[in-house]
Order: sequence, then C-alpha cells, then structure tokens
Amino acid sequence: MTQSNDAASSNAMWGGRFAEGPDAIMEAINASIGFDKRMARQDITGSRAHAAMLAAQGIISDTDAEAIREGLLTVLSEIETGTFEFSTKLEDIHMNVEARLTALIGAPAGRLHTARSRNDQVALDFRMWVRDQADAAIDALSALCKALVAQAEAGAEWVMPGFTHLQTAQPVTWGHHMLAYVEMFSRDLTRFADARERMNECPLGAAALAGTSFPIDREMTANELGFDRPAANSLDAVSDRDFALEFLSCASITAMHLSRLSEELVIWSSAQFRFVQLSDKWTTGSSIMPQKKNPDAAELMRAKIGRIFGAQVALTMVMKGLPLTYSKDMQEDKEQVFDAADNLMLSLAAMTGMVSDMQANVPSLEAAASSGFSTATDLADWLVRALDMPFREAHHVTGTLVKMAEDKGCDLPDLTLEDMQAVHGAITTDVFTVLGVHNSVASRTAYGGTAPVNVRAQVKRWQGIYA
Amino acid sequence: MTQSNDAASSNAMWGGRFAEGPDAIMEAINASIGFDKRMARQDITGSRAHAAMLAAQGIISDTDAEAIREGLLTVLSEIETGTFEFSTKLEDIHMNVEARLTALIGAPAGRLHTARSRNDQVALDFRMWVRDQADAAIDALSALCKALVAQAEAGAEWVMPGFTHLQTAQPVTWGHHMLAYVEMFSRDLTRFADARERMNECPLGAAALAGTSFPIDREMTANELGFDRPAANSLDAVSDRDFALEFLSCASITAMHLSRLSEELVIWSSAQFRFVQLSDKWTTGSSIMPQKKNPDAAELMRAKIGRIFGAQVALTMVMKGLPLTYSKDMQEDKEQVFDAADNLMLSLAAMTGMVSDMQANVPSLEAAASSGFSTATDLADWLVRALDMPFREAHHVTGTLVKMAEDKGCDLPDLTLEDMQAVHGAITTDVFTVLGVHNSVASRTAYGGTAPVNVRAQVKRWQGIYA
Amino acid sequence: MTQSNDAASSNAMWGGRFAEGPDAIMEAINASIGFDKRMARQDITGSRAHAAMLAAQGIISDTDAEAIREGLLTVLSEIETGTFEFSTKLEDIHMNVEARLTALIGAPAGRLHTARSRNDQVALDFRMWVRDQADAAIDALSALCKALVAQAEAGAEWVMPGFTHLQTAQPVTWGHHMLAYVEMFSRDLTRFADARERMNECPLGAAALAGTSFPIDREMTANELGFDRPAANSLDAVSDRDFALEFLSCASITAMHLSRLSEELVIWSSAQFRFVQLSDKWTTGSSIMPQKKNPDAAELMRAKIGRIFGAQVALTMVMKGLPLTYSKDMQEDKEQVFDAADNLMLSLAAMTGMVSDMQANVPSLEAAASSGFSTATDLADWLVRALDMPFREAHHVTGTLVKMAEDKGCDLPDLTLEDMQAVHGAITTDVFTVLGVHNSVASRTAYGGTAPVNVRAQVKRWQGIYA
Amino acid sequence: MTQSNDAASSNAMWGGRFAEGPDAIMEAINASIGFDKRMARQDITGSRAHAAMLAAQGIISDTDAEAIREGLLTVLSEIETGTFEFSTKLEDIHMNVEARLTALIGAPAGRLHTARSRNDQVALDFRMWVRDQADAAIDALSALCKALVAQAEAGAEWVMPGFTHLQTAQPVTWGHHMLAYVEMFSRDLTRFADARERMNECPLGAAALAGTSFPIDREMTANELGFDRPAANSLDAVSDRDFALEFLSCASITAMHLSRLSEELVIWSSAQFRFVQLSDKWTTGSSIMPQKKNPDAAELMRAKIGRIFGAQVALTMVMKGLPLTYSKDMQEDKEQVFDAADNLMLSLAAMTGMVSDMQANVPSLEAAASSGFSTATDLADWLVRALDMPFREAHHVTGTLVKMAEDKGCDLPDLTLEDMQAVHGAITTDVFTVLGVHNSVASRTAYGGTAPVNVRAQVKRWQGIYA
Repeated sequence: MTQSNDAASSNAMWGGRFAEGPDAIMEAINASIGFDKRMARQDITGSRAHAAMLAAQGIISDTDAEAIREGLLTVLSEIETGTFEFSTKLEDIHMNVEARLTALIGAPAGRLHTARSRNDQVALDFRMWVRDQADAAIDALSALCKALVAQAEAGAEWVMPGFTHLQTAQPVTWGHHMLAYVEMFSRDLTRFADARERMNECPLGAAALAGTSFPIDREMTANELGFDRPAANSLDAVSDRDFALEFLSCASITAMHLSRLSEELVIWSSAQFRFVQLSDKWTTGSSIMPQKKNPDAAELMRAKIGRIFGAQVALTMVMKGLPLTYSKDMQEDKEQVFDAADNLMLSLAAMTGMVSDMQANVPSLEAAASSGFSTATDLADWLVRALDMPFREAHHVTGTLVKMAEDKGCDLPDLTLEDMQAVHGAITTDVFTVLGVHNSVASRTAYGGTAPVNVRAQVKRWQGIYA
Repeated sequence: MTQSNDAASSNAMWGGRFAEGPDAIMEAINASIGFDKRMARQDITGSRAHAAMLAAQGIISDTDAEAIREGLLTVLSEIETGTFEFSTKLEDIHMNVEARLTALIGAPAGRLHTARSRNDQVALDFRMWVRDQADAAIDALSALCKALVAQAEAGAEWVMPGFTHLQTAQPVTWGHHMLAYVEMFSRDLTRFADARERMNECPLGAAALAGTSFPIDREMTANELGFDRPAANSLDAVSDRDFALEFLSCASITAMHLSRLSEELVIWSSAQFRFVQLSDKWTTGSSIMPQKKNPDAAELMRAKIGRIFGAQVALTMVMKGLPLTYSKDMQEDKEQVFDAADNLMLSLAAMTGMVSDMQANVPSLEAAASSGFSTATDLADWLVRALDMPFREAHHVTGTLVKMAEDKGCDLPDLTLEDMQAVHGAITTDVFTVLGVHNSVASRTAYGGTAPVNVRAQVKRWQGIYA
Repeated sequence: MTQSNDAASSNAMWGGRFAEGPDAIMEAINASIGFDKRMARQDITGSRAHAAMLAAQGIISDTDAEAIREGLLTVLSEIETGTFEFSTKLEDIHMNVEARLTALIGAPAGRLHTARSRNDQVALDFRMWVRDQADAAIDALSALCKALVAQAEAGAEWVMPGFTHLQTAQPVTWGHHMLAYVEMFSRDLTRFADARERMNECPLGAAALAGTSFPIDREMTANELGFDRPAANSLDAVSDRDFALEFLSCASITAMHLSRLSEELVIWSSAQFRFVQLSDKWTTGSSIMPQKKNPDAAELMRAKIGRIFGAQVALTMVMKGLPLTYSKDMQEDKEQVFDAADNLMLSLAAMTGMVSDMQANVPSLEAAASSGFSTATDLADWLVRALDMPFREAHHVTGTLVKMAEDKGCDLPDLTLEDMQAVHGAITTDVFTVLGVHNSVASRTAYGGTAPVNVRAQVKRWQGIYA
Repeated sequence: MTQSNDAASSNAMWGGRFAEGPDAIMEAINASIGFDKRMARQDITGSRAHAAMLAAQGIISDTDAEAIREGLLTVLSEIETGTFEFSTKLEDIHMNVEARLTALIGAPAGRLHTARSRNDQVALDFRMWVRDQADAAIDALSALCKALVAQAEAGAEWVMPGFTHLQTAQPVTWGHHMLAYVEMFSRDLTRFADARERMNECPLGAAALAGTSFPIDREMTANELGFDRPAANSLDAVSDRDFALEFLSCASITAMHLSRLSEELVIWSSAQFRFVQLSDKWTTGSSIMPQKKNPDAAELMRAKIGRIFGAQVALTMVMKGLPLTYSKDMQEDKEQVFDAADNLMLSLAAMTGMVSDMQANVPSLEAAASSGFSTATDLADWLVRALDMPFREAHHVTGTLVKMAEDKGCDLPDLTLEDMQAVHGAITTDVFTVLGVHNSVASRTAYGGTAPVNVRAQVKRWQGIYA
C-alpha cells in the first residue's frame, strides 16, 4: 500500500511567475539549452570524431558516417550563422543537434549514439570547452605580461616608493614593480598550463558509466580531438569535474592578482597620490569636474574576483558529498564556469589595455620615494659593510642621524660629512654613494633586487619568453 | 613631465573576441543595461514619486511633474509590452529611461534629475527590487510550509525510522519529520521578514553622497514608496549594500535547508530505501529501465545552494575593503542577487510541488522503523521509570535483553515475559506497552516529542499560521 | 559471505605523525574535548537546571538532585580554577564533567541522564554559548558606536572630501562620515539582536531525537535557562545549526564593515593622504624611519573578514545536504564559531580603541576637500534653484565656469562676479553663499545631508540610544 | 593643527575579556607566536643556511657564522625537547629564536640579520613549511591509493550497481569503482606535485622588499635549502602567497574527493544498503543497539571539506585587493594553512585506514546490481551489434522485453528464447551471453570499461606506480 496525501496541486498555489504549474517549473529548473548551446562547436566536433571512429572500426558503415559528418557540419553552420532554431522542449544542446541532424539526414542519425551515451558526450563537450578557455587564458596572460614588460622597459630607472603597510619603506624602480606582476601572471600562466595538461584525457567511450562492449578505438577519437590519451576509468570519466574546479582555481588566483594591481591603480589615481594617469579609454569623468577621472575599469577588475571565486565556491559546494557517478546536481557546473571564464577574459583584456596606455607620473613617484628618510636602511647597511659595524649598532647610529636630519628639516643626503662624523667618527665621504634614491636603487644589484641593471636583465629574459 | 611608454595598442593585441579594441572591451565591462533593465519598474516608480514630491515642494512646476509622470508611465508600458528599444550605448536602465522620456516629453524631462543623483537612484531601485524578492520569498516559503503541513497531517501516525548517522536510532512519525522542516522554513521566513524590515529605509534624497540643499521632503517619497522612513545618513545610503547581503544570507540558509530535504528525497527514492515515490512531474525516467526514476528536481535543488551561496561569497568579496562611498566595484552587486533570487524562487516552487504530490511508502517506512531493536531506548526508559532503576543499570539490562533477542532471531516485542524476567525478575507485563514502534512513538508525548497527538496539535497550530 | 581484503594495516603505513596507528588517528579525528571544554559553564548550567526539573517533576528524588547540583558546582569551580584534569579518552566536555561528577557523588550522578541525551545536551550547550556571544557582540558594537559618535561630535564641522571612486566628489563633514559607520554598526547590532531572539528556544528535552516519555517540564528548564520557550520539534531541535550560521552571517557583515573602515584608516594614514593619525597603541614603527607608522591593527582588522567569513563558508558547507537528524559532521561546527567569535570580539575592541584615540588632521582634510572644484555641484544646484535653470543647462554653465577657473589657476570661489556674469548674466552675488566648502556642507540640510546642524542632531539621537 | 577628541579610553570601556585595555588587545591581535612557533625548524634551518652563505661570501667571519650555526642548533634542540620558553612579548618565532640566540652566543647573533629582513625570513619559513606539507600530502595520497588498489585487486570481479542519480543504472565491478577513486586521488597527487614545483623558489635575499646591496650568493642558499632557484623579483618574493593558496586549492579538491567517498561509505553502511561493513576502529556503537554502527570517521571526513575550503576562502579574501608589498593582513595566512594541512593529513590517514579494513558485502552488492533490469542496456547494445539494428529501434525492442519480464515478475535473463523471439524473430540464443550481471561486466572490455580483465590490468599499472 502506498499512501498519498491529497493536497491537489491546484494551479492557484504556483501563483506569480509559475502560473502554469509544475510543467513550467520543471522545464525551467531542468532545461539547460539556455546556456549549454555555447558548447555547440565542441558537441559537433566530438560527434564527428565519434562517427569517423565508428566507421573505421566497422561499427557503422562509411556511408552512414559520411552522412552524419556532413550533416553535422550543416548544423554547425546553421548555428554559427544564427539560423538554427533552438527548442527548450529538447532540453539541451545535444538533443537539439541530434534532432536537427535527424531532420537533415534521417535514419543514419540514429546510429550516431552507438557506443556513446549522453553522459560521456556531456563530459567531452564541457571538457573541450574548458580546455579552449585554458588556452585563451594563457594567450591573454601572455598579452598582459607583454604590456607589463613594456612598462618595465620604459621605466627601468624611474624611482618610486616601495611600500609596506602603504607606508614608504625603501625606494624601488617602476620597472621592478611592473615585473613583480609579471612574476605573478606568469605563475598564473603555468598554472593554467598544468591544469590543461592534467585535464587533457578524453572521456569519450566511457558511455553511460561502465564503458562499452562495442569494439571502439578510444585512442583514435582521443587523438582526433587533441587529447593526450583516453581516460582510464569510465566511472571517473563521467563523474569527474576536477578540470572545471582546477580551471576556476587558476582563474581565482589570477583574479586575486588583478585585484591587487587594480587596487594600486585606484590608489595611484587619487588626487593625493597622482602616481599614474589612466587613459580616457578606461576611466569616466564628470561633465562639471574636469579633473575627476574615475578609474571605473580598475574598480571593476578589483571586483571581478568576487564572481570568479564565487563560481569556485559554487561548484565546490555542488560537488561536495556527491556519490558516483552522474547526478543531476552536476548540471549546475556550466553556468558558473561560463561566467567566470567570460569575466576573466574580459578582465585580462581590459587590464592589458589599461597597462598599455597608462602613464607614470615620474616626478611624483620620485618625490614620494625621496621623502620619509627612505634611504635610512641604505645608510645602516653601509655602516655594516664599510665599517664592519654589527647590525644592531648600525641601526642605532642611523637612528641618531635620521633624528638629526629631522631636526634640521632636511633629508639624509643633505647632512654634511661633519654632521655625520659628529655621530660616528669613522664615517667617510663614501657614504654619500648610497644615499639618495637613485644611489639606493642602483646599489641593490644582488639577484632579484631592484637595481635598474637587474630590471633590464629581467626585461630581456621576459621578452625572450613573451616574444 | 609625464612619461608614457609607446606600446601602441594595435588592434592585433586584442585578438579573438575583442578584435574591435578598447572601446568594445570598456563597453563590455562597463555597461549594465544587459542586466539592470530588470529594475525598470522600480526605476520608474521611484522617479514618479520623486517628481510628485518635487512639485509638492514647489521645486518644479505641477505641469512639468505631470508631464514627467505621464511620460514615465508610457515608458513603462513600452518596456512591459516589449516595444522599448534598449541601447547599450546608454549604459544602464536609468539612462535608457531618461533618454526615452526626453524623446517623449522634451525639456521637462531635464528637471527630473533635480535634487537627485544616479547614486541614490540606483540605491533606491535595487533596494526596492530586493524588497520585492523578500516578499516573494516569504510567500513561497508559506506555500512550501503549507505543503509540508498537509503531508504531516496525512501522516501524523505513520511510523518511520528516526536516523542519526543514517542509522536507525528510534522510531518517529512521518508527520513529525515533515514538521521539522516546517520549523526550518518558518525560521527562514522570519529571517526574510526581519531583513525586509531592516532594509526598509529610503535612500532617495541622499543625492550623490552628501545630501542636497534643495528643500525636498524625504518623508513624502519614503511614504509613497512604502518605506518606513528615509535613510538617516546620505553617505551610508549610497554605499550600503547590507540589504543585498542580508537577503543572500537568508537565501543561503534557506537553500541549505532545501539541500537537506533534497538529500533525503534522493536517498529515500533509491531502490534500497523506497521510502517515498516522487511523481513523474519531478523525475525523469529511462525508456528501457522502467523502474528507474531519477529524482532530477531534488538533485537540482540539492545543488542550488552552490550558486546561491556562491552569490553571497561574491558580493561579500566585492564589498570587502571598499572605502566610502560609491565605487564602481559595487556594480557587481546586481547579477549575483538576480541569479540567487531567481534560483531560490524556482527551487521553492519546485520543492512545494514535489512535496505536495510525493507519496510516502508507509509499509516500507514502518518495516524500516521496526528493525534494529529500535525500541531498546524505550525499554531502558521503562526500566528507569517503572522500576526506578538507575540509568546506567537500565542500559545494562537492556543490552542483555537485546542480545537475547538477537540470538533468538527476533525483535524485542517478541520476547516473552519469562524471557525478560530471566534477566531481571521485577519486569512486569506492563513493559509491552512501550515495545513496538507504535507504542514507542505514542509514548513520546512530552512537548516537542514525536507522538501523533503532538503532531496533530502542531499541525493545527501551523494551519492557523499558514491559513 | 562477507569478503575482506587482507591489506593488513601494518603500523608502517601510518608513518610520521600517526605512527601509533588507527587508534591514535581515530582519537585525533573524533575527540572534541580539545575545543568543547570552552562550553563547560554552559554544560554545567544546563545540567543543573535539568536536575532541578527532574526533581520538581518527581522523576528523581530531591536528595539526588541536590547532590547533583552541588557536585556540578564543585566541578565548575575545579574547571574555572584550573585544577580539573581533562581526559581525551573521555572525548568531550560532557563525558569529562559526568565522569568527575560520578567520582564526586557516586550513584546519583547516573540519574542525571534521565530523559536527556547527548544530542539535546550538546545542542543546548552550544546554543547557550552562541547566545552569550550574540550578547557580547551587541555590547561591543555599542561601545564602538559610542566611540564613533564621540568622533562625530568633535568633528561635526570639520570639512573633508566625500569620495566616489576614491576621487573627491563633494565636501562632507568628518562627523557625517563617522555617523555613516554608526548606521552600519547599528544595523549590525539589530541583526545580532534578531538572531538572538530567533535562536532563543530551548532544545533540552528533545532527547536523542524523538522526545521523551518521561513527564518532563520543558517550560521550567527553558525559563530557568533564559529561553523564551522550548523548541517545538525534537528532530529539528537536535539537528538545527541555524543559530550558529545566522550568528556567523551577522559577524561576516560586521567584519565587512570593519574592513571598509580599516581600509580607509590605512589609506588615510599614508604619507600621501595624512588625513588621520593613529595612536602609537595601534601602530608599529621602525627604529630608523621615525615617521613610518604602520597601521598594523587596522590591517589586521581589514583581514579578519577572511577567517570570519571563512567560518561561515565552512559551516554552510558542512551542513549542505545532511539528512536528519544528527550526523557526526556537525561536530565541525564549534571550532569555526569559536574562532569567528573570538576574532570578532577582538576586532571590535581594537577598532573601538583605535577610533577613540585617532586624531583627525583637520587642515589636511579641509585642504583636500577644497581642491578639485569640489563645489561645482553646489554651483549647478544654485543655478537651478535661484535662476530656475533646467538641470542640464545648469551643468553646461557650470562646466564653462570651472574651465575658466582652471585656466586662471584658481578655484570657483576665487572667480569674480564679473567673471561669472560673463558666462551667464543672471548670476548674482548670492552665488558666493554656496561656494567654498564650508558653505557647501552648511547648505545640505535636507534630512540625511552632511550639514553640521544635521550631524549634531544625529549625534544627539545616537547619544540617546548609546547612553 | 591636529585635532583629537577627548574620548579618554578609560579602562572601563574594554570590559570583560579585555579589561586590561589597549595593550592587551593589541598584543592579542598582533602577536603570532601562539601559532608561528610551528615554523621553528624551518626558521632555524633557513637562518643556518643564511649564516653559512654570509661567511662564504666574506660578509661575516667564519667564527661568527660557526657560533651562529651552533647556537641555532642548541635553540632548535631546546624547542624540540620542550625546554624553550616562548614569550608573547617577543611577538613571533623569529624574535623568540633571535633573542635566545643572543643570550646563548652574544654579539655574533647580531650579525645574522645582515642582508636579511623579517620579510624575506617569514616568506622563507612559511614557504618551506608549506613545501613540507605538499610532500606529506603526496605521501599520504600514495598510501591511500595503495589501499584502494588493494581493494580493487581483491574485488576485481565483485559485481555491484553502477549508480546515476543514486538509481541503479548498469552493473559494474567493485574493483572498477575503487579505481575511479585512485584516478581522483592520483590527480590530486600530481596537483600537489605541480604546486610544489611552482613554489620551489627561494625568497631569501629579497630583504625588506628591494633586494640588497650586500654581495650575497642567493644560488648558494637556494641550493642549500632545496630550492630550484632563487626568486627573481624581490617585491614579489615578499608579497607572494600564491604557494599557500595553491596548496589550499589542491587540498580543497582532495577534500571534495574525500567527501564523495565518505558519502558513499555512509550510505553503503546504512541498514538499507548494507554494501559495506566498516571496522570497529572507525565507527562508534550504541551500548544497547548492537547493530548500530555509526560511521563517525566517514562523516567527519565528509565534513572536513568545510574547514579546508573555508581556509581557502579566508586566505583569498585576505589577499583580495592588497597593494604591494607586505601588509600586516598577510599575517592571517598561517593559521588557515596550518589548520587545513592538519585536517587534510588526518583525513587522508583515517580514510586510508578505513579503506584498508572495510569489508565489502559481496552478496548484497551483487543482489542490488541484479535488480532493476540493469542489463537492459546490454540487451539493446546486443541488438545493435548482432542484428545491426538502428539504435532507436533497439531501444524500442528492449523496452518491450523489459515490460514482458516485468509482467512475468522475472528479470531479463529469465526470459526464454521463445519469449524473446515473440518480440523480435531474429534474436538468437547468443543474446544470453550478454544478459546477467556477470556477463554484462565481462563484456565491457573497451579501454576504461568495467570488465574484470580491465580492472586487473589497471591494478597492475597502479601497483607499478605506487610500489
């Protein structure tokens, strides 16, 4: 005996936007064609490879395979020219394509599903889509690095404050600062490259979940579709979404770097800093306040980490605790990745543009770098190096000299040798070679340091990489 | 001297999807009309109230106000009938509406912006949109609770296993289990109600950020637009997004509850459990495996917490560390809330439908509840209560009796009085009144317990609330 | 037939930190005493109320109840004086307390568990702990608001730039800016208050999950422990963690506000802004760079949203998809809430201290506010108001005048009446009453605006609330 | 003129836990020694390498270097034997070690800081700590894979249901299911390996942020400390936390896999499934319900993704929008990574143990696999393959046969050849070679399929890898 309560689902209860009742709700919650049509190209490419393999293995006839392959090209062309009519009733891109193929070529279309299931088909299409995005991210990161390297080359000698806690700590060079971001975005690039390599296994042939008894050639389809190898376990192949999560992880770290650079550009664009001028292309103004230059693009890029990382949270949460193999929960994977990828590519393009035509305000940078006794550390280091003074004593002597300069209302390079010797008799005129911001940066020649000579060497290295 | 590097932004570098260069990128990253047109009704309602107030205060003429108000109605009707042409060049919904108003009524349109800024306008529109969603959530939660209460009423006496660790612990009633979710969703409802009350302050009149020197009447617009009061601080009014975050918090906790109920429905629908049968409306089948009933809707609702909570993460991350007042980062607020609200409403509607027509498999539930010595606790409690045995000793005696039943291959109610007295002489025939799952649930009459009499009382209480 | 593979778990495989094998691992993963001992006071308070009720209902004797209640006081005193010896073998705080009680009073201790289970005991203890934290948050937010109101009172007339996009937009007052945060933190306070009210239902009496057949008086224990009522559904009572999630939601929004204020303090402390000077108590310096004042406390508070919101993510993820009722997963709830609460209280205390003794640099604020034609909007508004000029035309005239001032190298108030009339003949000397930052802020008297008179009125209102 | 309000920070306001006032609060919020002492070994190892390099380069004397290196060994031994006294006043591990070194060896200790700063020292220590954890994760994942491979080997032929939507879809083998997890955890392993390689650049020598003018040999210290190379940009070296974020990303994906396996173990352990029996080591029981075996360890591992991914959210949020280089916000990095790493290692160890001694219930698995016409797909495939029937027609014929079996109350293999031929005359006795679950799994021999022969081949492959 199976009991049921009689709470008849009268249409009244659905009210508002779902007035049509359960069918409309289920269609709305269940159909994916609204977003997965973005995978049309991948879907058709995958199906064409599958058909070719089926024929090569004698599972279907060459004639049928040829009809399928030609028909699919027609469908693709219809989609790409915008003449294809998508149907929500047909739920997803795979059914839409198949229905149209059947209309075009008739019976042979029915043979395309041999030794294949929706499960491995979806897994294949999405994986190829993500792989394309990994490639796009790599290209976009290269372009951004190139723009940063160009800035570094131009400003290898421009002096600016190196901050800790947003307080001037030591002078550095503009070029060195730009190259710090090249390091970050280059790490991002290798991260995408690693992810791409790891994801590059072909799920096609996993069928529903258990593999197939048809004598298929998985190496052939894997090769044809640019994969390094077929996936080795059918259960894993249809339930794995690691490739999407790893893509989102890479995107999130990249977006974090973008947010840091954006924050700097916003602060540097303020009237109080005036370190940089962003071009009109990336800012908006006020019709009545001419010098107001709102760094809109930078702010938006600072914010993009929200939705990109939000997508990672979303998909991680979806996958948490799902038993094998496919569960419908996993249909929630695509929109997150689509949105994150779109926003990542947009952000990288905008940042590349903004970096390319931003103008450093060199005098402001140098003035800021020169204030605040920013070469005190250089003085202390000189005392250690030249006079073999223990580090802690050198600090004490430096503190006294800074105090003296402060009292005189001048900076360290403005003290006389006599002033200095009054504090410590062994100081020689050589000390002046390390004071002043240009001397300071020029001295930091140990590998990785901010010296212009180092910056130029690194610029050359990066130019070789991002040729 | 301001330096620039000469990395000319040749179109080549944009490649692919941004071949048109910076303008296309900036438009893509900056324009919001693609999504904020969903706030058209709120925008126009707000503007009409503002115009009426300006006239009432003598800031603009009655004639101008009337022209504006009529013109806006025309715009709204064009939008709602789909004849309005949105322009991306005009960036957002506010500019699109204003441009059309100017086309319709000419000069007076220019006076609508008196004592108002885009900043307070956006803040107003979005707040009203979110407020509408809070109302919709409250309605949808009421409908869901009603469906759960109907299930509880039908099954006030149906016995099922109460699980801990997905292991049968004690028998409970179906009605009691349904009502546990009524508690959860009712808390959700009050949470939305609290959020709605807190957000119900009108930002209109904050102008750009500093307030205005026009003699506006903020009480009047606040009242007209259904707010409890005008916001008391103009800086806060334009930079606050708490209402959106709190809405997302409420939605996330609701989605968590939906995920728990969905998980139960998925598990209960398995061939191994067979506790419940979901109707065909909410499941999909297999053409060749007739008894396969995939609980697609339940799985999707289990997953929806991903994107809803992901939206909360996204907006929290956007707002982190933003200085006052408006920054462009905040434009990233709407899409997250729109998507979360849409998916929440869809999930609540689907769950209401699924709960309404699901059928409990009463014999399976009872059989599962009866296995595993599930009334051992009742026996121990009886020993304490009837024989005044200390709790720990009662546990020991019970353990011995369970072992005896296990050895005999029967359950506790199947032991004879002699069997029991062999273990402890003071046991009387009264003990059988607490053994057996029906006796067990009937006995738990302390407030909040699973007894059918309690369930019926709670059903009555809830029916009064969700009339 | 049950098969097993023979992969003997030789100790070798555990290696490193788990050399002792499975027992050590299970103890490490399973025991909670390391953290849940923080709930000792709540546990003992709850047990004492339970014992009193059992006696009042005649379920246990008065003598036993008295022995239990006295014994528990002894245990609490041992814990609070640090003489109690916690045992990991006894897994959690509840077992530790119970074992010690048994040692102290013998047999009667065994009766404490009558009509109670570990499940409702844990739910009670944790709920009371969270409730205490909600109270603490409310107190701490009050203290912070008080400090902000004091700053607002002192600086009701100090002029500073109102920023959008970190670009000066219009002059505002320091007091108005401080009060914007009072609005935020006061909303936070009401959010905690709502959460506290919603959570204030007593789970005690839910027993394992099904309620109990003992004639307990749940109203009595609920009252005794300060709850508004007993929880109405036993299944919900033991599986609900909404109160913890809602506490974390409130804490996260508060932490977001703290991050915004902290970001402002960090930026304002930079050499480029110099808007504010934080006291030495909240900053660290450099022994050789005297003017370097690192705003460490502000930076840490800007960061605290990470771990507080991270805790919310963690607990939401734990709860996702858990079937009813108790699952061991839920043991992961406490550490997250403990850490978030500790860091929230610490942050609120530090921010209160920092706000209390920070010093606004009034001349810098005013100078910054006065630059950039920040009163251009005031001029445009005056043209609209005084000359009844349409808004768009007023903008055009203003733009022309700003251009003129820019060309002359002066600001708007420095133009002569002749200059102005050259652009638009109807301008009168009255225009100068709105130019200049002091005039500007004084004019914005509409409710919610930045005028000093408004600030003072709001200060008075808040002083009444945070008396 | 700098103004201050006089809100004297009377101690009263701190109340409760911070009664001592600002100093106690600042110490509590600022000091890191409570957690960073876990990096003592890394700190001392790094300092010893630095001292050796300084001497080799002639920057300090060999005598001093030797004294430093010996002294540091003493400090390490004191820490590891527990005799070291940590001081909160000395804030962090670096200062604690340095102070003790000074006490032990006097003046030479002061030379250790030559050409080094706290910034590169912290970056180095933390990076080495994370690198150690990446190694530990790799080891732990190997052990887990080994345990899974052992299960796969034992059960290469055991038949169980392959699920989609938690509904039986097709029969698969136990071994194949186990190997699906080997795929996942092996991808995790390579992800950690990639992260380790990427992070393996030595920040030592970046000094405060600008590099140094001392003639240090960064290759030497990098080699000594096991790094592949020195970091190429000093600004990046001190502000980079990618290595920690990437470690957390890897840990989160691993934890997601653990949550999936745990969910399966929890469901499989239910009385309704009885697919597996977990050993007593990893479960807890009930003293009075003997067959209740709560899968506590599995539930805890299902939950661990919460805190591990929560840590990733926390650190991502901390890093969002931080300008270069070091900000105090970054001190919030360590506790998150420490906690995530601890819980990851604990979870991997527990899962390894649980997998090693779990017992598959082979008859239950096979019975479940055999129900529900689970070989309907095999029948359809046979019709296509043997009779060259188009796929869609094969589906139709299969559906008719399943209906016939259902009506007869039997499964597909129980139909007679006559039954079958009544539906389609061309069916031959060969069809029975694919019906029945053992035939079904045996037939899926295409690469990646579930056939025992495939499982055995994969087991061999993995045994070679995890030797």
